[in-house]
Amino acid sequence: MSNIREHILQTTCNLMEKQGYHGTGLNEIVKESGAPKGSLYHYFPEGKEQITAEAVWQSGRMTAKRIQNGVSGGSNAAKAIHDFILNIADHVETSGFAAGSPLTAVAMETATKSERINLACREAYTLLETAFKEKLLESGFTKTKAEELGTFITATVEGGIILSRTYHSGNPLRTVAKHLKVLLSQ
Amino acid sequence: MSNIREHILQTTCNLMEKQGYHGTGLNEIVKESGAPKGSLYHYFPEGKEQITAEAVWQSGRMTAKRIQNGVSGGSNAAKAIHDFILNIADHVETSGFAAGSPLTAVAMETATKSERINLACREAYTLLETAFKEKLLESGFTKTKAEELGTFITATVEGGIILSRTYHSGNPLRTVAKHLKVLLSQ
Repeated sequence: MSNIREHILQTTCNLMEKQGYHGTGLNEIVKESGAPKGSLYHYFPEGKEQITAEAVWQSGRMTAKRIQNGVSGGSNAAKAIHDFILNIADHVETSGFAAGSPLTAVAMETATKSERINLACREAYTLLETAFKEKLLESGFTKTKAEELGTFITATVEGGIILSRTYHSGNPLRTVAKHLKVLLSQ
Repeated sequence: MSNIREHILQTTCNLMEKQGYHGTGLNEIVKESGAPKGSLYHYFPEGKEQITAEAVWQSGRMTAKRIQNGVSGGSNAAKAIHDFILNIADHVETSGFAAGSPLTAVAMETATKSERINLACREAYTLLETAFKEKLLESGFTKTKAEELGTFITATVEGGIILSRTYHSGNPLRTVAKHLKVLLSQ
């Protein structure tokens, strides 16, 4: 993938994380990325819907990778996921509460409005759920339980980020980390 | 509160639930509500930011009331909250996945962009957390645990709705209901 293409997608991810799909115009993506306007149409001839779908998919891949790296190592799933969520809390605080949920607003704005973006959001969330599920399998959870808890953890972390960004405090995420650990330690 | 005012706010809630803050224009609110354009400026002289902040606050009040009604009665908190979440799953499905999270997109789009709307989102989420907390207190949880779990449940349900709307299926919420019950039954 060319660097310019990648850079346009990353800029789109960052802007939509902060202000959503409808709040982000193509002109702003061009301006923020510093890419020539022609390159936007060259790489994404189908316009905003295409850029967004690909940006969402890239977000999903990158977030899943962050989960995999964050929970890898010797710790069991309960402790590893707890510690990973504490890191997200710090990240949300450090970003000034502008970052931490690249998919949420876009997913809600487009759930019934764009089949193409909705499909990308499903694929992205599935990557996140799978990353948690794999850690649970590695820690000895059964397949069914790992699958269900992969969904549960994704939902809980997603909601925790929403509350932390809204309250301008990492504490909701820290509360989520604490009680999720109780559930996963059973 | 006048009926027209209330109706404009309800229309705003519904539109923003489906397509977010930036995706909803004043003209669309006027058109959907059927209210005369002049009445919009009469009741909300400060424009879109004012309407949104008040709509968010109204959403919070109504959702908190739905939680209170939904979990009231003889059941203990674990069962009552489980059954209430199953009802949300049905509601999200019945709406064609357009409804179920009136605050999410708006909260994310404005967390660092509008102090006024952000404040309304905080108040709204606090009402939701408190509604769950009160049921937990009634079921004998300690004050600290009820407070923390009020936050945890709000985060989890919020994330479950996001996944259910994204996947066009009530099942993520049903999974959330099941495992939350395990945690609350301990």
